[in-house]
Amino acid sequence: MRKPRKLRSRKAGLPPGSLVHIGEIKTPESGITLLDFGPDGLVETRLAQIHDLAGYHQQHVHLWANIYGLREGDDLAGIGSAFELHPLLLEDILNTNQRQKAESYGDYLYLVLHRYEVAEAPACLVQDQISLVIGRGRLLCFQERPSKTFEPIRERLRKAQDGLRAAGMDMLAYSLIDSVVDSYFGVIEQLDERAERLEAEILGGPGPGVLEQIHQFRRCVSHLRRNLYPLRELLGGLHREHARFFGSDIQLYLRDVYDHTVHIVESLDDLRELATSLLDVHLTTSSQRLNLELRTLTVVATIFMPATLIAGIFGMNFHTMPWLREPRGFLYATGLMLAIAAVMVLLFWRRR
Amino acid sequence: MRKPRKLRSRKAGLPPGSLVHIGEIKTPESGITLLDFGPDGLVETRLAQIHDLAGYHQQHVHLWANIYGLREGDDLAGIGSAFELHPLLLEDILNTNQRQKAESYGDYLYLVLHRYEVAEAPACLVQDQISLVIGRGRLLCFQERPSKTFEPIRERLRKAQDGLRAAGMDMLAYSLIDSVVDSYFGVIEQLDERAERLEAEILGGPGPGVLEQIHQFRRCVSHLRRNLYPLRELLGGLHREHARFFGSDIQLYLRDVYDHTVHIVESLDDLRELATSLLDVHLTTSSQRLNLELRTLTVVATIFMPATLIAGIFGMNFHTMPWLREPRGFLYATGLMLAIAAVMVLLFWRRR
Amino acid sequence: MRKPRKLRSRKAGLPPGSLVHIGEIKTPESGITLLDFGPDGLVETRLAQIHDLAGYHQQHVHLWANIYGLREGDDLAGIGSAFELHPLLLEDILNTNQRQKAESYGDYLYLVLHRYEVAEAPACLVQDQISLVIGRGRLLCFQERPSKTFEPIRERLRKAQDGLRAAGMDMLAYSLIDSVVDSYFGVIEQLDERAERLEAEILGGPGPGVLEQIHQFRRCVSHLRRNLYPLRELLGGLHREHARFFGSDIQLYLRDVYDHTVHIVESLDDLRELATSLLDVHLTTSSQRLNLELRTLTVVATIFMPATLIAGIFGMNFHTMPWLREPRGFLYATGLMLAIAAVMVLLFWRRR
Amino acid sequence: MRKPRKLRSRKAGLPPGSLVHIGEIKTPESGITLLDFGPDGLVETRLAQIHDLAGYHQQHVHLWANIYGLREGDDLAGIGSAFELHPLLLEDILNTNQRQKAESYGDYLYLVLHRYEVAEAPACLVQDQISLVIGRGRLLCFQERPSKTFEPIRERLRKAQDGLRAAGMDMLAYSLIDSVVDSYFGVIEQLDERAERLEAEILGGPGPGVLEQIHQFRRCVSHLRRNLYPLRELLGGLHREHARFFGSDIQLYLRDVYDHTVHIVESLDDLRELATSLLDVHLTTSSQRLNLELRTLTVVATIFMPATLIAGIFGMNFHTMPWLREPRGFLYATGLMLAIAAVMVLLFWRRR
Amino acid sequence: MRKPRKLRSRKAGLPPGSLVHIGEIKTPESGITLLDFGPDGLVETRLAQIHDLAGYHQQHVHLWANIYGLREGDDLAGIGSAFELHPLLLEDILNTNQRQKAESYGDYLYLVLHRYEVAEAPACLVQDQISLVIGRGRLLCFQERPSKTFEPIRERLRKAQDGLRAAGMDMLAYSLIDSVVDSYFGVIEQLDERAERLEAEILGGPGPGVLEQIHQFRRCVSHLRRNLYPLRELLGGLHREHARFFGSDIQLYLRDVYDHTVHIVESLDDLRELATSLLDVHLTTSSQRLNLELRTLTVVATIFMPATLIAGIFGMNFHTMPWLREPRGFLYATGLMLAIAAVMVLLFWRRR
Repeated sequence: MRKPRKLRSRKAGLPPGSLVHIGEIKTPESGITLLDFGPDGLVETRLAQIHDLAGYHQQHVHLWANIYGLREGDDLAGIGSAFELHPLLLEDILNTNQRQKAESYGDYLYLVLHRYEVAEAPACLVQDQISLVIGRGRLLCFQERPSKTFEPIRERLRKAQDGLRAAGMDMLAYSLIDSVVDSYFGVIEQLDERAERLEAEILGGPGPGVLEQIHQFRRCVSHLRRNLYPLRELLGGLHREHARFFGSDIQLYLRDVYDHTVHIVESLDDLRELATSLLDVHLTTSSQRLNLELRTLTVVATIFMPATLIAGIFGMNFHTMPWLREPRGFLYATGLMLAIAAVMVLLFWRRR
Repeated sequence: MRKPRKLRSRKAGLPPGSLVHIGEIKTPESGITLLDFGPDGLVETRLAQIHDLAGYHQQHVHLWANIYGLREGDDLAGIGSAFELHPLLLEDILNTNQRQKAESYGDYLYLVLHRYEVAEAPACLVQDQISLVIGRGRLLCFQERPSKTFEPIRERLRKAQDGLRAAGMDMLAYSLIDSVVDSYFGVIEQLDERAERLEAEILGGPGPGVLEQIHQFRRCVSHLRRNLYPLRELLGGLHREHARFFGSDIQLYLRDVYDHTVHIVESLDDLRELATSLLDVHLTTSSQRLNLELRTLTVVATIFMPATLIAGIFGMNFHTMPWLREPRGFLYATGLMLAIAAVMVLLFWRRR
Repeated sequence: MRKPRKLRSRKAGLPPGSLVHIGEIKTPESGITLLDFGPDGLVETRLAQIHDLAGYHQQHVHLWANIYGLREGDDLAGIGSAFELHPLLLEDILNTNQRQKAESYGDYLYLVLHRYEVAEAPACLVQDQISLVIGRGRLLCFQERPSKTFEPIRERLRKAQDGLRAAGMDMLAYSLIDSVVDSYFGVIEQLDERAERLEAEILGGPGPGVLEQIHQFRRCVSHLRRNLYPLRELLGGLHREHARFFGSDIQLYLRDVYDHTVHIVESLDDLRELATSLLDVHLTTSSQRLNLELRTLTVVATIFMPATLIAGIFGMNFHTMPWLREPRGFLYATGLMLAIAAVMVLLFWRRR
Repeated sequence: MRKPRKLRSRKAGLPPGSLVHIGEIKTPESGITLLDFGPDGLVETRLAQIHDLAGYHQQHVHLWANIYGLREGDDLAGIGSAFELHPLLLEDILNTNQRQKAESYGDYLYLVLHRYEVAEAPACLVQDQISLVIGRGRLLCFQERPSKTFEPIRERLRKAQDGLRAAGMDMLAYSLIDSVVDSYFGVIEQLDERAERLEAEILGGPGPGVLEQIHQFRRCVSHLRRNLYPLRELLGGLHREHARFFGSDIQLYLRDVYDHTVHIVESLDDLRELATSLLDVHLTTSSQRLNLELRTLTVVATIFMPATLIAGIFGMNFHTMPWLREPRGFLYATGLMLAIAAVMVLLFWRRR
Repeated sequence: MRKPRKLRSRKAGLPPGSLVHIGEIKTPESGITLLDFGPDGLVETRLAQIHDLAGYHQQHVHLWANIYGLREGDDLAGIGSAFELHPLLLEDILNTNQRQKAESYGDYLYLVLHRYEVAEAPACLVQDQISLVIGRGRLLCFQERPSKTFEPIRERLRKAQDGLRAAGMDMLAYSLIDSVVDSYFGVIEQLDERAERLEAEILGGPGPGVLEQIHQFRRCVSHLRRNLYPLRELLGGLHREHARFFGSDIQLYLRDVYDHTVHIVESLDDLRELATSLLDVHLTTSSQRLNLELRTLTVVATIFMPATLIAGIFGMNFHTMPWLREPRGFLYATGLMLAIAAVMVLLFWRRR
């Protein structure tokens, strides 16, 4: 929702596969960490430049390269030719404004995933794109900025407890996808809290900024929900078109992740309906207050106008007027005022 | 809708199959009852701990274990290995924030069902998750807290009247599912009553708390309705993917239960539309009252303002003024006031 | 929509096939008429009790039994065993709160149809359930109360003009279904009239009860429309799953009835959209009247307030004041009042 | 939308194929024109009665009979038996309240099409039903009243320029369908104009009748749009189920007509959304005017009330009061009034 | 959205394939540029008239003819017969009011694409139709007016860098389609900016013209979104029905373009929901201001009315009245006024 620094329209007319960076640059530095592992061991390396990845000599069966903060000038084409990646795939890695999707290029599977963080207003959600390239015993993971999302998995690899090292590349890929999907639960819990705060405020008597908050909240939820359809489709596709990249034992786990996305979509449907309902309630509350305000005004006018008229009548300068000379005239007049006011109040009381 | 004590996000990054309890804990104690039965007899046992279930020696053909109030520290993994249950299945049993679903793990069928109770505002609906594991002559039933829903079935087993003992495990499973689905009818009847009360209140003249009640009612119905889609899907799936767990005679009964869910969804659609309509009616009623209020004010102002002006005019201190010295001047003036007021009232009368 | 006397929740936990009556009882007496006919003749009989039907000896090829006002104590189980009907089928006949559906039980086809009558507010629609059991040369027709809907068909059978006697059981079944579907056209025509009346009232100036009427009308149409989806599905199913119960010549007629339901659904869509539009128009009308009311008030206040101020000014008791002693002072003052009022009126005139 | 003279419910209970006229009768006289043509010539005849059609001796390969203004007493059954038409088909021809549809009866194809004309309010759209019976070298075209829609096609047949005479019956049928579909473009252009007029009026300042016009316009567009779905379906069906009635060269043309209907539906979607948007805008405009009105009232009250109070204060009859005896007292008082009014105006100015 | 000069209804009744120009004429002059190229070279020619194209002698393998500003009198039929194009195809080229679509006529593929430019209000979007005829080594591109959209592709052909010359006709066709689809990103970015401006204005305090702007914006987005469904369908069709026109290597690129359209549709969904939300917010804001306005009025009335009454009471002319003769009477009276005003202000303060 923030304005991206580099617009998508920059690319119109360029030949396909042009490596142009699109989207906001979210971190000033970039970094590459390698986890070179197999059933028999694990080596962890840091590379200075993306260029070095092409020349890296792999020691174990599996290589997980984690790259963040990539930008236009970097030698992505070098890796492309070293790893035999398709130009369109490289182009998509640099474009951080993409839909979530799964595409297979020969013996590589290419996944685009989004991770969200809830921010304070006005932007509400910060989106990070994660590109996964899986194939030939390698997993390249491109991120927009460093994050802690995959740290537990790295830890599990280092400790070699639960057989993740010995399991295939597909188990690692599943674990990464699962981490990203699980991170949505946290986002939804935060949105849930925000919704409850908004609800309490509106039903209690809404302040001036509430309207904008509902509006932003609704945008947030709608945007997130719309972005989950491609994710669900993606995960459904891993069963079908891209099933060959995953062992049959992993399929069971993928079904589980798929179920989670369905659950998340349903939670978002709940939230979205809640947001719409809140706006309706806000509008009706607003109209009810108008009623209250107007009633006050009507009651005041109905009580004071007749009394003022009576005072005006006895303030007229006619030579011959009733009551004026009587000693109790003033009492009669004020009594009349009070009587009319009492009748009016009684009438209002009865009507409601 | 209540805030769960243990959030779903606790699990992000953990390896699949981690036994972490998610959701609110709804009962302080836990309990296990066993019904060990066959065509020739029935033994009813109570176990102290979930641990004992793994070591229980089955005497008849069928075993129905009813477990409630399970929590994280309990030895679920023990049962898992004794009964050869998949780690993902065990993980799902502990997570009480799930969608309703049917999954087959080899020769086990795993069902997640929800039972609802209508509570007073604000939470409106209390949800209990029921996990059924069916297979190899055993039916494990995990509940969040003890309830009377399955008591009639236990009674039928004890009395051995209608052949439920002699029938297969699938007939028992069907009976449990049918009980849960039938309990929705009671929920809908209660919601129906609430809707009628709300409707009467709104059309008669809504009080201050009605708006919140409509809002809560709408949330309730929407939530319930959204939760029924997975249930319907689940029951449809028992015909297709999981048909091997049910005999062909039971299929006819399952079709009947499926029909009930469709009926329930339609009732909820009716209720949901009613809730939306009620909010519209409330808003329009509100606007109509505003009209009435404003009309009162206008009538009052239109009658008293001219009269007050006339009184003001004859209260001016000019030396030469008409009528002032005439004996009937006062009558003329008040007559004029009454005449103008009468004309105004007449005009208002005619316009409407 | 009326509150049924016997609630659906009574049945929760009972074994399947329990004969419990659910729904309102709509007629105090019950009755059974038999039409025993074939190409060569027709015998019409009345039975005193449902019990007698089991023992009735059929004389011709076809038997059409028409039963209404059935209740819980009656010997439905007797017919069930005489005619070899499935327990679930018997259970459904007694439950008059069902969806419209077609189900085949071996060589019996079971249909549930709804017939509607438009009632006065508040219930709006009265629903009667018609259960048809077709098979083995017999057609059992269970109704909630006696009606004239099938009278023309009985007449056609008695007169033996158009070959209905000689035609098979499927032609009779089609004729009954067609009668029920055609009765919807009458319902829609009545709703159409009501809509036109409502429309005229709202556009002409809505009275106080209109809002409730729109609300009821919308509920009515929504309910009816939702109930037609199962009917359409049912009729579509007669072509496909249950095609074996109907000859190929009857299929053409069934396609025609199917077309009618589609037409009815579309008419209801029109009516539903009209109802929504009417509420919108009502709300906007309401808002427009508010405008008119407020304008009156503003004009009145704008004309009389300045004049009252002027009168007040010349009513002040200062010793030295202009115009007071002049003979034409009063004329000047009233002239000033009129001038200001004229300017105000002119300004209002111009603005609109 | 006009009330049909003969209601659909008249037919409930009648045997299928009963020739009962349903719908409004739109022309007092009826007429039959025949175009008997082939590659070698064309004969144009007028028949006095529908009865004569059964006995007409066909001279060329193709016969196009155009019948309008048919009613109940006419000998439709005679044509039915002469041309071997199915009773249901004859029944449908007399029922002018039907959906658009395509049905094949043996070697006849039966089409029901609707042609629309835009009328002035309130009815908005006038619908004519066109029934086409195509087969065995004959095309029967039943219309509710005479029209110019098919005149260009008749002209092309008479002039024998573009090979329409030599082309098969399917080309003629296509030409008729194409004429009807093309006539929708004219309807949409007229509705477009009406929408633009409405839009200009609402944004410029809506008059009293605008609300009803939006309401009617929305009904119009919705009705037309809903009626186009069957038409699209019908045209899609000509490719599939009824493909045998059209040569493969005509299929290409039918695809073109199909495309037109899709285009028309999209235009109607645009118009429908526009109508909804206009009502929203109208409501908001209404609310904005209320604001303006109220602001005027508030400003007037805020300026004159304090001044009137001051005048009232100096009109009190206390013996000892400040300023009263001073020569400049009056100036002080009126100065005070002006000062307060100025401050008030300033405050209002600043707030907005 | 602008009124086309030549209406679609002009064509009703004409034989298929009639070359009638429909739609607005957007440029006064017309022009034809030819790029005659192959792996071994490129010749660029300008033709004076469309007539010359029929006689042009092709020198290389591929010919790309770019024609803009075509109109009715031009010799399109000549090219039709020279290139053996179907009459319906020629008819569609002249009709610039079409849906986006892909159709294959024998060995020609015919594409209709739309390019948009964002204009200032009221028209908002200017639409240009691009017709592509691809086949037999030729690509005819008909545009409504000259544009820069395809200039980068022409440049790539001239420079012969990236193998576009050597690649087949399908690569060129893909490049053109890609350019058009990419141009939508620019449109969306401009709409995004407009939405942000509108949002800021509404939340800050909407001026008088905002309502019309939201209305236009919503129309714009809806129209564009509706027009993208055919585009998506078209691109999906290039994979399926029209796959034979594209090599298998190009299919991968087409999948990429397809993905872009899905992305664009989702962005438009976001924008559309935003527009709806903005109108809701605007309405609620409007209602909130009404509240504020009314509160001001009520406060003013409640403070001044009682004071005016007191002044009126002491202005009455009774002979016997309290306080009048007391020296401090005036102070008492004004003190009372102030006290009541203070109480009123306090009450208002407390209520909110």
